[in-house]
Amino acid sequence: MSVRPIRIGVAGLGRMGRVHAENLAHRVPDVELTRVVDVVEETARAAGERLGAAWSTDVEELLRDPALDGVVIAGPTATHAPMIEQAAAHGKHVLCEKPLSLELDATVRAVQAARAAGIKLQMGFHRRFDPDWAAVAERIAAGELGEAYLLRISLRDQAPPGVEFLRGSGGIFVDVAIHALDAARWLLGEVEEVAAFGAATSDAVFAEIGDLDTAIVQLRFASGALGVIDASRVAGYGYESSAEVMGSRATLRLDNHRRTHVERLAPGASAKDRVGDFVERYRHAYLLELEAFADAIREDREPAVTGEDALAAFVLAQACDEALRERRTVQVPTSGAPQEARA
Amino acid sequence: MSVRPIRIGVAGLGRMGRVHAENLAHRVPDVELTRVVDVVEETARAAGERLGAAWSTDVEELLRDPALDGVVIAGPTATHAPMIEQAAAHGKHVLCEKPLSLELDATVRAVQAARAAGIKLQMGFHRRFDPDWAAVAERIAAGELGEAYLLRISLRDQAPPGVEFLRGSGGIFVDVAIHALDAARWLLGEVEEVAAFGAATSDAVFAEIGDLDTAIVQLRFASGALGVIDASRVAGYGYESSAEVMGSRATLRLDNHRRTHVERLAPGASAKDRVGDFVERYRHAYLLELEAFADAIREDREPAVTGEDALAAFVLAQACDEALRERRTVQVPTSGAPQEARA
Amino acid sequence: MSVRPIRIGVAGLGRMGRVHAENLAHRVPDVELTRVVDVVEETARAAGERLGAAWSTDVEELLRDPALDGVVIAGPTATHAPMIEQAAAHGKHVLCEKPLSLELDATVRAVQAARAAGIKLQMGFHRRFDPDWAAVAERIAAGELGEAYLLRISLRDQAPPGVEFLRGSGGIFVDVAIHALDAARWLLGEVEEVAAFGAATSDAVFAEIGDLDTAIVQLRFASGALGVIDASRVAGYGYESSAEVMGSRATLRLDNHRRTHVERLAPGASAKDRVGDFVERYRHAYLLELEAFADAIREDREPAVTGEDALAAFVLAQACDEALRERRTVQVPTSGAPQEARA
Amino acid sequence: MSVRPIRIGVAGLGRMGRVHAENLAHRVPDVELTRVVDVVEETARAAGERLGAAWSTDVEELLRDPALDGVVIAGPTATHAPMIEQAAAHGKHVLCEKPLSLELDATVRAVQAARAAGIKLQMGFHRRFDPDWAAVAERIAAGELGEAYLLRISLRDQAPPGVEFLRGSGGIFVDVAIHALDAARWLLGEVEEVAAFGAATSDAVFAEIGDLDTAIVQLRFASGALGVIDASRVAGYGYESSAEVMGSRATLRLDNHRRTHVERLAPGASAKDRVGDFVERYRHAYLLELEAFADAIREDREPAVTGEDALAAFVLAQACDEALRERRTVQVPTSGAPQEARA
Repeated sequence: MSVRPIRIGVAGLGRMGRVHAENLAHRVPDVELTRVVDVVEETARAAGERLGAAWSTDVEELLRDPALDGVVIAGPTATHAPMIEQAAAHGKHVLCEKPLSLELDATVRAVQAARAAGIKLQMGFHRRFDPDWAAVAERIAAGELGEAYLLRISLRDQAPPGVEFLRGSGGIFVDVAIHALDAARWLLGEVEEVAAFGAATSDAVFAEIGDLDTAIVQLRFASGALGVIDASRVAGYGYESSAEVMGSRATLRLDNHRRTHVERLAPGASAKDRVGDFVERYRHAYLLELEAFADAIREDREPAVTGEDALAAFVLAQACDEALRERRTVQVPTSGAPQEARA
Repeated sequence: MSVRPIRIGVAGLGRMGRVHAENLAHRVPDVELTRVVDVVEETARAAGERLGAAWSTDVEELLRDPALDGVVIAGPTATHAPMIEQAAAHGKHVLCEKPLSLELDATVRAVQAARAAGIKLQMGFHRRFDPDWAAVAERIAAGELGEAYLLRISLRDQAPPGVEFLRGSGGIFVDVAIHALDAARWLLGEVEEVAAFGAATSDAVFAEIGDLDTAIVQLRFASGALGVIDASRVAGYGYESSAEVMGSRATLRLDNHRRTHVERLAPGASAKDRVGDFVERYRHAYLLELEAFADAIREDREPAVTGEDALAAFVLAQACDEALRERRTVQVPTSGAPQEARA
Repeated sequence: MSVRPIRIGVAGLGRMGRVHAENLAHRVPDVELTRVVDVVEETARAAGERLGAAWSTDVEELLRDPALDGVVIAGPTATHAPMIEQAAAHGKHVLCEKPLSLELDATVRAVQAARAAGIKLQMGFHRRFDPDWAAVAERIAAGELGEAYLLRISLRDQAPPGVEFLRGSGGIFVDVAIHALDAARWLLGEVEEVAAFGAATSDAVFAEIGDLDTAIVQLRFASGALGVIDASRVAGYGYESSAEVMGSRATLRLDNHRRTHVERLAPGASAKDRVGDFVERYRHAYLLELEAFADAIREDREPAVTGEDALAAFVLAQACDEALRERRTVQVPTSGAPQEARA
Repeated sequence: MSVRPIRIGVAGLGRMGRVHAENLAHRVPDVELTRVVDVVEETARAAGERLGAAWSTDVEELLRDPALDGVVIAGPTATHAPMIEQAAAHGKHVLCEKPLSLELDATVRAVQAARAAGIKLQMGFHRRFDPDWAAVAERIAAGELGEAYLLRISLRDQAPPGVEFLRGSGGIFVDVAIHALDAARWLLGEVEEVAAFGAATSDAVFAEIGDLDTAIVQLRFASGALGVIDASRVAGYGYESSAEVMGSRATLRLDNHRRTHVERLAPGASAKDRVGDFVERYRHAYLLELEAFADAIREDREPAVTGEDALAAFVLAQACDEALRERRTVQVPTSGAPQEARA
């Protein structure tokens, strides 16, 4: 027999919100896109009509729908934590885009509210659902690498977002590197120490708003392994999402994706294309993250990546900021997350 | 507003039929899987219930459904041509797996019946819908390669199908190489001459049933370009689907796909994985071929690959057989297809 | 103690002759470049003075030198066979560039003269001395591939030589494909049947002089394996020297070489360079072929590739010509070489 | 006319000394290996006889030879600085293996002695002579990358040397990372700040002797660019020597080398081999570094990499040690080298 469809709404129809809404409407089995919300009425209406979903400009309306199982929160960062608390109050499960918040207090409160209400709170760290990253994680967990000695992650955007987005992004550590910090914890466990270097040489705007265009983070894991992350907003040549885990018995490398598997040979050079950005690179992961969210609801399971993970990654990002400012190695609060969030 | 869904049935629930039915039910936008048919009642019932579609063991029942727009024919080869004629009689559009038939007469008759009835007849040459092959075709058509001099296609299965399938397969040219013959026509136009070598050394069964395990085909195109295809049922190392087009200004290579983008480095060697077979390699093309079928119906357009293309590829495959038997170069009947089918 | 140096002269100081002379003078251990000869006095004098070797315009003078052990024959093809007979008469060992001759009779005579005189006659099929090809040959011989089913070799020049060279080249099979035909025999043994297609569409000059710019050769080996060679004089994108051997247990691919191991990433594409021609690609093989020649003399051993191999490859190239002209499969004379040459 | 040969001796016939002696004897044009020295008489005698050079156990004997132009110093690190001073006293040019010394004072003294005597002092940083690294350096210098933002270098040995060597190696920064530190200065100019993390988890011996098995170094260049180096003695999977320079307009990656260009495809994986260690990887660079040394002597030019470069890299390595111990970012003394060495 056919399984019961999980009914999901999407709040916030920016770039990622539209990707999620399209996927829910057409490409995720046994799921219904029930409702869409955006503060801009025309955006909400157009998406609702095109995708066959109810629409509104008011998230409360969405959350009050008794038929709804969960909501994807994809609006501006400032709305994430309050909306998680609202959803918790209505008993609706949440899939929330990162970062959960730019404030530690708000992050802790939202995570606690979700726990107290017993809702699923799954974070949109898409690497967790990507088959390549998952293969690396599984092979590490299976002991295939022996003892892990070194992790390297590169995460770079070809060009920076607009200055308005940058102003509210929280900075390169919490906006960009956080994906790598989460992946680092996932692959090799908790981080005890960080150090960081940063630069802002590509454009004066970065210095003006107190952000960086390029950064390097060093990690020491509780296991004794070392890690290094480089993050950039100005890679120029294109989008980069690669990683390496070196172990005593084997080493794994996770490469960039190509747009096609067509190589062009012309005098002097053989050229391959590449995917252009994270939406293209993680297209399949976005589907799988929605499937996983639906499955977690359907089977009443803990999501693969939780609010506590969001908190731990946020704490690491803040430690990077501190290390950079103070030009020293910074010890990370125990277990990568403040005590109270665990209580 | 939401577009009208195209209602499609699937006849034949073997491996490819199940892939199509799953895709229609879950992953193709604006399409409904309305009905499924298989001669084995349990197979039909299970699929229908799982996918939320009506089911039966009788294709006539499916074809009589006035709400149905089209049917995917995915049963044994012997059923393809008769079922096309049936569908034509009911005015239902057809997406048919290759080969259309093992007989020239039956192929011609089915193609003519489809034309006479005015139904769409789209052939399941999935390379036509694959983004990599499509990129190669577009770049050739755009003149990026200059004059095309040489085409190479490799198409190999890791292990042969069971002997019962082999007996009815029509042989390596019509069963395996036909995909490459169709791709060759698509990329570089009509073929005027062929020569072929074949071998059957891996297992005595191939000689017993008069088939080959490995074959090479040489092509001369009307344009003056040359082509070479190698096909194998016993590649051993894995599945191969690669191609190269060498032109005066540039050369394109279409590589195999990887299962993940993870490389494993261990003492002595760095290893990458690969996809295992055509179903894994062309997963995305199967979706796109269903989307294209629905679009052709919705927009009343000629499909990208037609019954006449199936006929032309079949004529080429037969010419390969003749060249091999007679140990000589064989001229291909004008335009790659008998006159009558065009009339 | 230091080994006795082998004293070698070079006859013919064109492109390859200069490469050999430089290598003998500077880069091959335990060898002396004793003499250089060229019909152009200035060429001979300049090379002799630069490399510290005696020089002359007369090969007889070189061959009469009692201190000389052997000679590298690198002048125009027409001089190869007569010079081998001269060298045989003087008891000097020979390393001869391919092709030995454009005439079957002259080839047979030169091979017989060398045997009768007991001199070493090593042919300049440089793939035989290349570490990559040698690795493939060793792994096939060691049984690593299981039963070999299919061989593919691509051999392409970026641009054709001048028309004067083309007129005397003997055509694409004997001038270009012969390297691949020799490699095919080396890797998988004797060839029993060939078929061939050819084209001459890039420039009217090819038709005028009766040559081809691109050709495909099919092979059937005595072992039952199949082979395919593509050869081109007009690859456009660059130089190609690649191969594949598909076996029941594993498949080996021999890739092109890169000039550097530097990849350049710019918007849209990642590009790698490649070597530009055979001199750059086989730079190391040319050294090793001279070392092997010196070793064969020093240790009185049969060279790794002999006059009989040159004859067998020439017979195959002629069979390709015949197959093309007669549009049919051609049986190759027993063992790939006429009986008399073996006697 | 033939150029005057440069006469060179080799002092110290360990692994690298033997490589240099063989190259000088056989593979470097216009150079003579005149003398070899080793404290072990049998080693010196065997090498001298095999290579046709005078031999002794006393480096003074070598340095007193009036016919000698220069000496390659390849013995234990402790002998480097004293021998440079000796060579300077005899007016002999020096090619010295790294590190120049484990002591800052001795390094400065040796560099000053070479300058005072007017001898060439070329350091054995072989990357400087490698065609791949040189291509990267040239393309950066030519502005092809635009503004350089980020440098990454990985330098890893598969397995550590013996514990006796480790005890005297000076630690991972001065023994391993120093090659990358020199390359960093060469490519992007002086370094102003460093931070470092290190680990010693593979074997208790590293902690016992106060060394690390794996380390990460962060760099801030005077130009504003950032850099990261990872170095390991326990890579397990093999030898690694790769780099990346990311710029505003393009990014260059320098890959590892393969032993052969043969790929092996077997069920599940396609595998390529790799070179095994630095001697295999930099085989060609070792030749070119000797050619460059001979050219510097012949043409009375400053070597491409000098004693001052050795000093600057050593100062950086010491700054890494300090950063690691003190868990903070360390400012590097002006211009990467103490003032006095420049005077």
